[in-house]
Amino acid sequence: MPVEPINPPPRLLMGPGPVDADPRVLRSMAAPLIGQYDPAMTAYMDETSALYRDVFRTTNDATLLVDGTSRAGIEAALVSLLEPGDRVLVPVLGRFGHLLREIAERCGADVHVIETDWGTVFEPQQILAEVDRVRPKVLAMVQGDTSTTMCQPLEGIGAVCRERDVLTYVDVTASLGGNTFAMDDLQLDVATAGLQKCLGGPSGSAPITLSPAAVEVVTARKHTEAGIRDAGEVDHGERIRSNYFDLAMILDYWGPRRLNHHTEATSMLYAARECARLLVTEGMDAAVERHRLHGEAMTAGVRGLGLEVFGDVAHKMNNVVAVEIPDGIDGDAARTAMLTDFGIEIGTSFGPLHGRVWRIGTMGYNARTDAVLTTLAALEQVLRAGGVAVPPAGGVAAAKEVYA
Amino acid sequence: MPVEPINPPPRLLMGPGPVDADPRVLRSMAAPLIGQYDPAMTAYMDETSALYRDVFRTTNDATLLVDGTSRAGIEAALVSLLEPGDRVLVPVLGRFGHLLREIAERCGADVHVIETDWGTVFEPQQILAEVDRVRPKVLAMVQGDTSTTMCQPLEGIGAVCRERDVLTYVDVTASLGGNTFAMDDLQLDVATAGLQKCLGGPSGSAPITLSPAAVEVVTARKHTEAGIRDAGEVDHGERIRSNYFDLAMILDYWGPRRLNHHTEATSMLYAARECARLLVTEGMDAAVERHRLHGEAMTAGVRGLGLEVFGDVAHKMNNVVAVEIPDGIDGDAARTAMLTDFGIEIGTSFGPLHGRVWRIGTMGYNARTDAVLTTLAALEQVLRAGGVAVPPAGGVAAAKEVYA
Repeated sequence: MPVEPINPPPRLLMGPGPVDADPRVLRSMAAPLIGQYDPAMTAYMDETSALYRDVFRTTNDATLLVDGTSRAGIEAALVSLLEPGDRVLVPVLGRFGHLLREIAERCGADVHVIETDWGTVFEPQQILAEVDRVRPKVLAMVQGDTSTTMCQPLEGIGAVCRERDVLTYVDVTASLGGNTFAMDDLQLDVATAGLQKCLGGPSGSAPITLSPAAVEVVTARKHTEAGIRDAGEVDHGERIRSNYFDLAMILDYWGPRRLNHHTEATSMLYAARECARLLVTEGMDAAVERHRLHGEAMTAGVRGLGLEVFGDVAHKMNNVVAVEIPDGIDGDAARTAMLTDFGIEIGTSFGPLHGRVWRIGTMGYNARTDAVLTTLAALEQVLRAGGVAVPPAGGVAAAKEVYA
Repeated sequence: MPVEPINPPPRLLMGPGPVDADPRVLRSMAAPLIGQYDPAMTAYMDETSALYRDVFRTTNDATLLVDGTSRAGIEAALVSLLEPGDRVLVPVLGRFGHLLREIAERCGADVHVIETDWGTVFEPQQILAEVDRVRPKVLAMVQGDTSTTMCQPLEGIGAVCRERDVLTYVDVTASLGGNTFAMDDLQLDVATAGLQKCLGGPSGSAPITLSPAAVEVVTARKHTEAGIRDAGEVDHGERIRSNYFDLAMILDYWGPRRLNHHTEATSMLYAARECARLLVTEGMDAAVERHRLHGEAMTAGVRGLGLEVFGDVAHKMNNVVAVEIPDGIDGDAARTAMLTDFGIEIGTSFGPLHGRVWRIGTMGYNARTDAVLTTLAALEQVLRAGGVAVPPAGGVAAAKEVYA
């Protein structure tokens, strides 16, 4: 068969992510490659670390990229921290809490879970009470769980965990850049992210930051691989179960030793660096405020169309809203109509919410007025065509009120 | 600090990889993103599978991408095949054989190794005799080990292993596209690659193919993760130790079930698809012949400069040559001069060869006459400036003879 070059159809991606990457990020990936130890490459790596310190709001030296999607960052964090039998506590808000539990189980950890109904968050005190009961080595949490749109409050958790010698890990893939997050102020130990949400890039690179305490735990397990190890190099602790996700070795690659691990995914590093550069240039507070504004406009807009918003709206992430699918319309058919008639993608849902809500994102490059208003205008058409009574222009008018 | 956009210095990457990506591959990554379940996206995934069937020369349905560098593909293969305690046999030719051993050990396997001197290969009979002695579940091999430039002959190994119920895994990262390889003719079970060598792309995506027998072993261990599993879904076998590299789940994402695993690294998929499209359009035989021609020209060229070629040249990969660093010149200073004066990167070496040889690649987009002749011309200058007696124009003339 003759296969044509890549030429994707025009789309406006207003689901829970991935969303359209910023064109400047896409262009950065078309830059020529350079060698792994080229001074220009190691300078780019150092600059990327520095930029992500600003994005995560941390002074952690150990701030770098894992070469894989956001899920690779989660697994790198957990498999490097957790030895078989280690106790870990996972508060589960939605699908991605289940993912943390599942990854920790595969690491051989002794996993304890507390759950809250989808669409709600925990009080920090609930989590801390469970920390005192379970006494885990690691508390592993999701800040923003896109499956439910909820944003877990983190205030006060890190400080108490430090008093208890409990390490904290937070997955901020869905929330970073669009919601307030400050690694050091929150006294957290490890956080991981991805590019495909509020960072405005493609999936495929996972920024990660580790506190000195976390670095100590990880490097205490260092076993440099055969073939590149120095004569006389001594192994420590229980070997990390993964080579690819062995943060002790990856830190040696990103650190002054520059010891080769894998071949850095150069084009994805370019993208990750550009995502952070754009965010830091905008200012992290300004970026969060932009997501708050457009998220509020979208929420007002869907309500203006007569739709119900799912969950505890006071604890919703800025960058995504879940909307109850109204009676009488086929949710999947409506999504297909959005895509085929208007080129706009909105999201379906997982698990208990499947068939019950659509998820609509306003994040990264798409946290923009025109993207919000266009989506609301199209959704109005699709709802009406599907037999739902909709106030004419109700969505766009409500959003405009927020902007005014 | 004000950070500038990505703007790498001009480089001609003539090391053992990564090498310059084909500009068409780089441009493909600048294409806009589309959603994970967009019909255009699933069509790209299916086309990518079909193209890599041609590249690997296989009819395996299970032909897909792992979202990480080539090392991620190796780990996905081994962690999905190997349960703790499983016996695995690894013939070690160089650094990347050690890597297979190391990854298999971290999977908890019972790893048996045979080694050969760096710069040599095994007779297939040596490997098969060891298979009969060890009776492994998996024989894990490297076809082309860039650390030594050697290309392990694979003829006859797969067929005997199938008679013995031994699964075969081959890492073809460094060799695929530049050296003869035919998955099905060789009767192999799993092979993994990367884009950054003869495929002419950036590091960050790992094509993989699995035979029906390998798929059976992997899917016998399937445990769909909580949060997306169907009610009543039954788990099987010993759970794969990694979630990110769980090929049983990833196959459900690439297969007709389209069950969400991670968010596909869309831009890297674009790149991987374009790499394969260009190779298949050229024809796999033609691509191998191109690598043979330019590899032969480079080898003749370095000899024409009076340099010694390292190792068993009859079993060298087409796409890389290791050259003994001549007496009297500082190998690292010469590499720096190549980079700073001419913008050309050649490679250093690992382990026993460190400081003893340079590695010079002619692969992917850089398997070209102008790249070969320019490298030889620059190397002549650097050698002479370093005090090595060099026949004037000896390198370029010898390469031109190969081309004539």
